[in-house]
Amino acid sequence: MRLSRYFLPVLRDVPKEAEIVSHRLMLRAGMIRQQASGLYSWLPLGYKVLMKVQKIIEEEQNRSGAIELLMPTIQSADLWRESGRYEAYGKEMLRIEDRHEREFLYGPTNEEMVTDIFRAYVKSYKDLPLNLYHIQWKFRDEVRPRFGTMRSREFLMKDAYSFDITKDDAVRAYHRMFVAYLRTYARMGLTAIPMQADTGPIGGDLSHEFIILADTGESAVFCHRDLIEKPIPPKDTDFRGDLSPIVDDWTSLYAATEEMVDKAAYESAVPEDKRVSARGIEVGHIFYFGTKYSAPMKATVTGPDGKDSPVHMGSYGVGLTRVVPAIIEASHDENGIIWPVSVAPFEAVLINLKAGDADTDAACEKVYAELQAAGIDVLYDDRDQPAGSKFATADLVGIPYQIILGPRGLKSGEVEIKHRKSGERETLPLSGGVDRLRSLVEPQRMDDI
Amino acid sequence: MRLSRYFLPVLRDVPKEAEIVSHRLMLRAGMIRQQASGLYSWLPLGYKVLMKVQKIIEEEQNRSGAIELLMPTIQSADLWRESGRYEAYGKEMLRIEDRHEREFLYGPTNEEMVTDIFRAYVKSYKDLPLNLYHIQWKFRDEVRPRFGTMRSREFLMKDAYSFDITKDDAVRAYHRMFVAYLRTYARMGLTAIPMQADTGPIGGDLSHEFIILADTGESAVFCHRDLIEKPIPPKDTDFRGDLSPIVDDWTSLYAATEEMVDKAAYESAVPEDKRVSARGIEVGHIFYFGTKYSAPMKATVTGPDGKDSPVHMGSYGVGLTRVVPAIIEASHDENGIIWPVSVAPFEAVLINLKAGDADTDAACEKVYAELQAAGIDVLYDDRDQPAGSKFATADLVGIPYQIILGPRGLKSGEVEIKHRKSGERETLPLSGGVDRLRSLVEPQRMDDI
Repeated sequence: MRLSRYFLPVLRDVPKEAEIVSHRLMLRAGMIRQQASGLYSWLPLGYKVLMKVQKIIEEEQNRSGAIELLMPTIQSADLWRESGRYEAYGKEMLRIEDRHEREFLYGPTNEEMVTDIFRAYVKSYKDLPLNLYHIQWKFRDEVRPRFGTMRSREFLMKDAYSFDITKDDAVRAYHRMFVAYLRTYARMGLTAIPMQADTGPIGGDLSHEFIILADTGESAVFCHRDLIEKPIPPKDTDFRGDLSPIVDDWTSLYAATEEMVDKAAYESAVPEDKRVSARGIEVGHIFYFGTKYSAPMKATVTGPDGKDSPVHMGSYGVGLTRVVPAIIEASHDENGIIWPVSVAPFEAVLINLKAGDADTDAACEKVYAELQAAGIDVLYDDRDQPAGSKFATADLVGIPYQIILGPRGLKSGEVEIKHRKSGERETLPLSGGVDRLRSLVEPQRMDDI
Repeated sequence: MRLSRYFLPVLRDVPKEAEIVSHRLMLRAGMIRQQASGLYSWLPLGYKVLMKVQKIIEEEQNRSGAIELLMPTIQSADLWRESGRYEAYGKEMLRIEDRHEREFLYGPTNEEMVTDIFRAYVKSYKDLPLNLYHIQWKFRDEVRPRFGTMRSREFLMKDAYSFDITKDDAVRAYHRMFVAYLRTYARMGLTAIPMQADTGPIGGDLSHEFIILADTGESAVFCHRDLIEKPIPPKDTDFRGDLSPIVDDWTSLYAATEEMVDKAAYESAVPEDKRVSARGIEVGHIFYFGTKYSAPMKATVTGPDGKDSPVHMGSYGVGLTRVVPAIIEASHDENGIIWPVSVAPFEAVLINLKAGDADTDAACEKVYAELQAAGIDVLYDDRDQPAGSKFATADLVGIPYQIILGPRGLKSGEVEIKHRKSGERETLPLSGGVDRLRSLVEPQRMDDI
């Protein structure tokens, strides 16, 4: 993509309304625009990151055996009356009347609707296990939306729903999601730690939050240091096999948020030199809630014994529009965002130090073509702008590698590569720049871990 | 994908409520489920088709130079008051009050919001041309939603918006979309004909509808036969060059829907042997509307002369949730859907005629692995079901190729390939089935035309 033809409205000033660093940086880097309180447009750079996050989530959901569909944003109130949540949900639910004065709502979550789909088609244990997920916009009418897309009213969520004949099977489904989540966050370059959680309004008796560590995180967390370095389950993990050893391994080490922590238990479970007290951000939440919805909604299946019983369910959420700022909270410096390669809007930015100079333009065009041919997702800063401004923009929007070419380098046959994260600079022969960049980028894509 | 682990709730009975063939087939093939009047879930098979349609649209929008972003579904009423459409839009607009009794609406289209984004960031003619598009759910509260997703209330639309300094430049932007649309529909296996259109509530003075020909189409169309066979502009079309010769070539031949046709003009413009009177379905609509929104909303840019003037705009829509049934209207038979390969939910289905038989299972597993390795998007019908039922399902859901293997074929070392569209069957040596299938599928992907 040529920057001269792109739409990247970078802001020079720090927006006053933004209280946290990710919100400030998303506004400054031209990723989002607030359209009304808690409602955001995702501008091209932000949208590209959001879609990279979505793709990773989809790949890992599919790998675990979950199946993607898409439910509508608007739901009928009657469906929610069946579960009893229509009245219970309160003012966070955006309630709507259509032209015929029928009652609807903008879905804040989809337990009821997916249960309705299930009961319409599935009658026998032979069709189980089943896990259906979608990635759809939701709405929660927060009293005071803030922190940008971290806590917006309209937000994009991946929500998966598992259906099983017994509690044991449901726990196996829960384990599959547990492992899929470990892989999902790791592929985004995040250190995410599963922590026992309160089940809250979804209900149920088994639940974990996935918390990523970030110095500017919203809440304090307490965990065993070994969780931070623990290798994630590999891509050839057998999701049809027994995953409980993996889950046990992760859950045997103490980890809790400040809401759930029991200081005495923490100190007795974790040796002093292994105690990590840090800050974190919730980026996912998984629940097993049994027959909480299937019983009132009569979603039953016939078992091997010929008897009908309500199906055991779980739900599994990731807020995509929350993950993006969470990545920024975990990875930035005073100059801007530092994207992990796997979710970066572009993997590299080619900086032309003297756009308009015929020789430099020609050399840059050649490198640009080579980078594209090498499969690098590259932004070409071909604008007629001072070098300093180009460097500042590249740093601010956080592209992992800068490849810098100007008249001086051209004369000596050299090109420079700057690593955004470390600040390290390499000077290379012009002919070797593309290969070097490829060798840097490819292992960090993490699409094959 | 193994069908035994998939979610494909095929219906045996023809649903009573469905009046048109695409609606009946989408319900029977387990593509969609109605959740309330005019509100549909896209079940896995349907969702997969919808996403293939989306990918083609995105590729062609990007090729033409348009840039993707994403605006929220909920918009503030105040924004629509600026253009004067908040009162004018009437009952089709779904109006919403939030918990603070502020007025919002579920966007039926995005001219106002995209104009707001534009005016916030773009100040100079130097940043033009610009075309921003998004693919987002919209809502129009139709009095009587019907025909399935062909006329649903919540629907998925691609809407692009062009911004230019002069009318001449805006017409060039219009031409780029015109050509992108020709390519988009052709890649979906559709014959789409641009026809001069009424500009309706969007306003403006230049507009075309893209109509696909289908015997069961909603309206009569009248056109010159040469339009039907006209080759589409190739992928290396220079979208930065002058596209008016292409547009003139297409628009010089007569084409009109029944609402717009002038019979005398039609008969004088088209020789008798070239007259085609057929039926069609609108699948896209493009508009140039000048300063209709930019003037009242004060979206101005500074020109080369230093003077500010309102930007010239156009908008360009494709209803994705409408395109899918339109493809079915254009391509089906008495047994079910016949998908063009480029939008098929799966390119091939491998039918195991005797699931449970060890030798047949082993042979099928081998072919399944080879098909996947060959990059074929394949569904493996591994269920323990009678062959007749498997054939009926394969025909109903419309997968372009069936590759059929059973104990008898295995004995003689043969596999059968059935072409869904022609009904043609080929018997091949077992070892040659995958290569043959690949040679059939690849040219029809049309990702390189």
